Amino acid sequence: MRFFTAGESHGPQLTAIIEGLPAQMPLTAEMINKELKRRQGGHGRGRRMQIEKDQVLITSGVRHGKTLGSPVTLTVVNDDWKHWTGIMGIEPLGDDVSPEDIKRQITRPRPGHADLVGGMKYGHRDLRNVLERSSARETTMRVAIGAVAKQFLHELGIQTVAHVTEIGGIITDESAYANLSIEELRTIVENNPVYCADEQASVKMVAAIDEIKGRGDTLGGVVEVVIEGCPPGIGSYVQFDRKMDGKLAGAMMSINAFKGVEFGLGFGMAKVPGSEVHDEIAWSEERGYYRKSNRLGGLEGGMTTGMPIVVRGVMKPIPTLYKPLESVDIDTKEAFAATIERSDPCAVPAASVVAEHVIATEMAKAIMDEFRCDTMEGLKEEITKYRQYVKEF
Amino acid sequence: MRFFTAGESHGPQLTAIIEGLPAQMPLTAEMINKELKRRQGGHGRGRRMQIEKDQVLITSGVRHGKTLGSPVTLTVVNDDWKHWTGIMGIEPLGDDVSPEDIKRQITRPRPGHADLVGGMKYGHRDLRNVLERSSARETTMRVAIGAVAKQFLHELGIQTVAHVTEIGGIITDESAYANLSIEELRTIVENNPVYCADEQASVKMVAAIDEIKGRGDTLGGVVEVVIEGCPPGIGSYVQFDRKMDGKLAGAMMSINAFKGVEFGLGFGMAKVPGSEVHDEIAWSEERGYYRKSNRLGGLEGGMTTGMPIVVRGVMKPIPTLYKPLESVDIDTKEAFAATIERSDPCAVPAASVVAEHVIATEMAKAIMDEFRCDTMEGLKEEITKYRQYVKEF
Amino acid sequence: MRFFTAGESHGPQLTAIIEGLPAQMPLTAEMINKELKRRQGGHGRGRRMQIEKDQVLITSGVRHGKTLGSPVTLTVVNDDWKHWTGIMGIEPLGDDVSPEDIKRQITRPRPGHADLVGGMKYGHRDLRNVLERSSARETTMRVAIGAVAKQFLHELGIQTVAHVTEIGGIITDESAYANLSIEELRTIVENNPVYCADEQASVKMVAAIDEIKGRGDTLGGVVEVVIEGCPPGIGSYVQFDRKMDGKLAGAMMSINAFKGVEFGLGFGMAKVPGSEVHDEIAWSEERGYYRKSNRLGGLEGGMTTGMPIVVRGVMKPIPTLYKPLESVDIDTKEAFAATIERSDPCAVPAASVVAEHVIATEMAKAIMDEFRCDTMEGLKEEITKYRQYVKEF
Amino acid sequence: MRFFTAGESHGPQLTAIIEGLPAQMPLTAEMINKELKRRQGGHGRGRRMQIEKDQVLITSGVRHGKTLGSPVTLTVVNDDWKHWTGIMGIEPLGDDVSPEDIKRQITRPRPGHADLVGGMKYGHRDLRNVLERSSARETTMRVAIGAVAKQFLHELGIQTVAHVTEIGGIITDESAYANLSIEELRTIVENNPVYCADEQASVKMVAAIDEIKGRGDTLGGVVEVVIEGCPPGIGSYVQFDRKMDGKLAGAMMSINAFKGVEFGLGFGMAKVPGSEVHDEIAWSEERGYYRKSNRLGGLEGGMTTGMPIVVRGVMKPIPTLYKPLESVDIDTKEAFAATIERSDPCAVPAASVVAEHVIATEMAKAIMDEFRCDTMEGLKEEITKYRQYVKEF
Repeated sequence: MRFFTAGESHGPQLTAIIEGLPAQMPLTAEMINKELKRRQGGHGRGRRMQIEKDQVLITSGVRHGKTLGSPVTLTVVNDDWKHWTGIMGIEPLGDDVSPEDIKRQITRPRPGHADLVGGMKYGHRDLRNVLERSSARETTMRVAIGAVAKQFLHELGIQTVAHVTEIGGIITDESAYANLSIEELRTIVENNPVYCADEQASVKMVAAIDEIKGRGDTLGGVVEVVIEGCPPGIGSYVQFDRKMDGKLAGAMMSINAFKGVEFGLGFGMAKVPGSEVHDEIAWSEERGYYRKSNRLGGLEGGMTTGMPIVVRGVMKPIPTLYKPLESVDIDTKEAFAATIERSDPCAVPAASVVAEHVIATEMAKAIMDEFRCDTMEGLKEEITKYRQYVKEF
Repeated sequence: MRFFTAGESHGPQLTAIIEGLPAQMPLTAEMINKELKRRQGGHGRGRRMQIEKDQVLITSGVRHGKTLGSPVTLTVVNDDWKHWTGIMGIEPLGDDVSPEDIKRQITRPRPGHADLVGGMKYGHRDLRNVLERSSARETTMRVAIGAVAKQFLHELGIQTVAHVTEIGGIITDESAYANLSIEELRTIVENNPVYCADEQASVKMVAAIDEIKGRGDTLGGVVEVVIEGCPPGIGSYVQFDRKMDGKLAGAMMSINAFKGVEFGLGFGMAKVPGSEVHDEIAWSEERGYYRKSNRLGGLEGGMTTGMPIVVRGVMKPIPTLYKPLESVDIDTKEAFAATIERSDPCAVPAASVVAEHVIATEMAKAIMDEFRCDTMEGLKEEITKYRQYVKEF
Repeated sequence: MRFFTAGESHGPQLTAIIEGLPAQMPLTAEMINKELKRRQGGHGRGRRMQIEKDQVLITSGVRHGKTLGSPVTLTVVNDDWKHWTGIMGIEPLGDDVSPEDIKRQITRPRPGHADLVGGMKYGHRDLRNVLERSSARETTMRVAIGAVAKQFLHELGIQTVAHVTEIGGIITDESAYANLSIEELRTIVENNPVYCADEQASVKMVAAIDEIKGRGDTLGGVVEVVIEGCPPGIGSYVQFDRKMDGKLAGAMMSINAFKGVEFGLGFGMAKVPGSEVHDEIAWSEERGYYRKSNRLGGLEGGMTTGMPIVVRGVMKPIPTLYKPLESVDIDTKEAFAATIERSDPCAVPAASVVAEHVIATEMAKAIMDEFRCDTMEGLKEEITKYRQYVKEF
Repeated sequence: MRFFTAGESHGPQLTAIIEGLPAQMPLTAEMINKELKRRQGGHGRGRRMQIEKDQVLITSGVRHGKTLGSPVTLTVVNDDWKHWTGIMGIEPLGDDVSPEDIKRQITRPRPGHADLVGGMKYGHRDLRNVLERSSARETTMRVAIGAVAKQFLHELGIQTVAHVTEIGGIITDESAYANLSIEELRTIVENNPVYCADEQASVKMVAAIDEIKGRGDTLGGVVEVVIEGCPPGIGSYVQFDRKMDGKLAGAMMSINAFKGVEFGLGFGMAKVPGSEVHDEIAWSEERGYYRKSNRLGGLEGGMTTGMPIVVRGVMKPIPTLYKPLESVDIDTKEAFAATIERSDPCAVPAASVVAEHVIATEMAKAIMDEFRCDTMEGLKEEITKYRQYVKEF
């Protein structure tokens, strides 16, 4: 599976092409739309989310609800485009318009955004040319692609969920959800205002978000993605770039505003002795091989172990604050207090949805790369056979 | 730049091919050997390190001390190979030898290693066939490649250093080294027994390593890599897989035993408001644009900002313990206490060397990908010109 | 530059995403549309071409007529889609529709098409699921992408043209156009009914096409693409997959129905001694180095030499014939005479347009890969400097 | 499967790393050496071939005659290296040696070689720095890699052969070998002085080579590679870069001195009507689907059809002639008659061996990419099952 996303935040539409899906996989716009809606929810989102109400159109690669094996195109039309045709028009300006007349030009880069460096790199002096693409609006298509990936994983009996484990220093108590099944966990998270599985922590998170909003500031947090049901042996130790941890980490860190990633105990492994880190191996007739614990987060030697994959990412607070940061106008070189383009006090719940989809995408891609996946049916059979083989190993 | 490593831990040699280096770059075996030596040092390494004494041979791509533009081959011969020719022989067994006669076969997978899953994946019932490649011995070639990358960066005025910031819960005090130049930092680290820049912390680390060794257990830790002098704008926000953070994170997580990675404040960003996370932008005639702080670790919008890149990785404790973990024999399915193959109580100092070289490799690769780099001289000119351009932007 | 095409022949639209273009490059839909029109012309095309009248929409990556550096999305809406919504609908069939009710199902694979093998590969028993994507309709987007590539090359002073050199055994006389400039050649070709530069041959070609049409048969032919103005040294000899000949040949052979490719004298080189094949090297103050002839077609050692690139491809006759070929129904296994889905007697002129654009795409990609190309202006300067350097070498 | 080759013609050794092979595949140096020997044979080779006598060493990825799944390293030591240590030394020159003292420097580029353009690209004024890598000596490793690929194909019941079909205008009569089995064909070719399957033609070819040698000139030719036993459906029509024709053509054209490639009837398809080009489809209980002819050379819609793959490449005459070509000294800019570095009058027989191995490599790679190939046994089962499926389709 290979894919690209395209589209500017206030352009006519967002587009994605996904190449390499198996044929005969059930796929509908509805499956994708319900995930796009989750991405637009969560306590702490502002007005823009209400405008967007994203709906995907499938325009290739699917016929009568099933994939064809050919590339799938996904499109999300920007309903707001009609208000931006002048500012963001595709065609050259007419002779009667001078470049200075274009509204909403930006010469003041916002700290924490791509604005300044993007302007330098691509030679844009109107920094709108940068932020229209660097905007987290792009994550809409990451979720849309991930929804396709999740459908793929679902067909193979692989389940995913994401939940928020920290916002602004408020950390969940793992015991609140450690014994839940992945379905139970998902149900709780979907009904929680900050997509959190610890009810008590979530109350405090909501309060913290409201409080920080009042101060014109923002909060970051940590999200956890869990994938259950992966067969062991996806990824490989034989070459550095085939390690599954590296691929998942690279994917997580490609999400806007993510600044760290860890597996299992993660950074906690620097604090405890080896005897408390590694997962003992057991075997039973019914289960085959399994681990007595899952501190390593489902990966050993760059490969899935068959235990749940547990990966967390940290999202920095949104850099656009009412409480302004200092910056410099690129035309006048004068210092100024940075512009507000957008104003969510906390996007961590939405980011958990993005993280789930990005990780699901990477896992689906890895499975497609390793197994023959021209047809969904053939792949299912192969995976079933492989699962039996590893059980009997 | 593209590259592969090859070689088994007890095979005749390790090999790497590096493709895509510019021509006319100074390169000698000596430059690489001094880094290989650092990788073999550090308090907490065991006997094997003394055996290895790695020396690289350059066998292609270099003539009279300068690169040719053609692929560079690096070889590290295994001095111990003579003792392993029977066990690890390349040629088929003679008719007089039955497979059962091969010594040192392994049917008991060690928790925390690739043994069990690797055996399943590749159908190996002698798990030596896995561990010979999944061994951290492979990092020798990651360092060798990284030494070439560092030489490349050095030619462009880009400096790198790595140091240990945590071992077994003992954390350095950043103020001990926050105001040091990168050269000063490197000098201190090179002379510290655990490659740590905080003298006081390092004394405790050494004690902790000695103590854990006595208990037959192991310790993990955190290493920090700093790269100074990168031009801004390496990486891009325009497509998910071009973000520099994603590439560096993926690289760091491809190192054996690494389980997490973070940039700048990293996971700390979940704890403080946005106003304390983002780096204000300033400008002066002499410096051009710069940031007043570097909490984001030198990356914004998936691109280098021109500030130092600061990335940390966490290494799990080495899973091979004298204090054994439970596992299962794959032939008998009986539980057993896992074998000791190797016995360093702490490999974090050595891992810091690996991390530095892996991150340097990824950064060098990114620069080669973005700039024309057929000749070192041409690239130097281009980078100089680009640096001037961004200063005047 | 990376790109994907997507879309079924009778689906709602064709889409392409192009990733990695420099910013500040002029680009309009009009530039692309004029090439799409040329693709739909040429003596020997049937009715479908009149229906199509392709018009591209740019929906991302361009603002006010210039590229942004972000991915460019191109869309060609299928005007005929309204007649196909039932047959090719995206959404699942309603409960009231049984799969058998779908019209225009195909169980009879056409020889020379992807039908049978594609059905096997992707498990499609309605072979429409194959032919909708394997159709040469896809070349619309190859031309659209190529039009962007040609605009890129044009900015760098690199010109391309394609012309037909053989149809059904009628071969052009090279002397008719050997001394023309590339602009003159293009003007002649654009005004010729079979996109041929030899007026006399073209008259015979037209007659041959008309004659074969009368017999219900089809004709193939050879097209030649010429690229003028490439700097020397694009591509490399240092690794097999960096040779420019390999890349161009792979690209040409990825066009539907192409079955061979050759450079310069091509297969003629098997017939003459080396002294009549190689191009002597000369030098003058004004021109720098040049070749006295161009029998090798502008490539030596896997690199451009600075001489015009001359590459030819052979297109097989369209396999859909009124004069039917035998095949087998995949449901009944009964032999039958293969269906006519489409009926152009000769698509070689159109194929020359596709070939030009595919080769231009590959050449543009190679230049983007080798030079820094974040901005068009920066790239222009760099190429100018490089041209001066090679002149003075 | 991914791989790189490395090494200079007169350097210490050639090296290749092959990544991604399945485990448990039988592999010995002997299997590779017999192919290296064939590459060094053939009427028309000069003295150098006797010096080389290439022998491969396997230094990783194989244990007791079977692959481990880890990267395989192949090395061919250059026996002649001892005479070149001064000229081609890796280490920097001592203070007592000035660059001018280095022997065998080259400032006179040979037409038809990479010398001049390579010098420009990589900034080499001693053109030896180019020719050492651009030399056809590199094809040694292409053959070595291909021998591994052939072993892989052999395990799957896929056979390959190559033979010479034209030298210097002397063309074989296809009827001489059209009805031979692939084993018979191979036996004949292996015993023919010019690796040709038409005895009568080969006598003339030998005479032509002797004659051209007498004139100090060289001859090119055409080689044909046949692969029998490929399952249908390798490659795909869904995206331009997944077409098998494109991949094979790109591979063939990456061989030194190859200037054209064609499948089946190839360029002959421009001469005959469609009804004489396409292969009618038939079916029988025993064979499943098959084609009544194989004019398309085993590929339709970018996929293998199950019929033999037939691909031809044209090799230009070796450009180094006793009968010299004009060139220009890059230091003095004076015209001169080009140097003789090497002197085979005809390398087409050897090139047929290279072509076979390169095409086998690409085909093996495609199969590995599409099927799960962690273990040879698993892959065999899967291919067997797939073959049954397509038979019953």
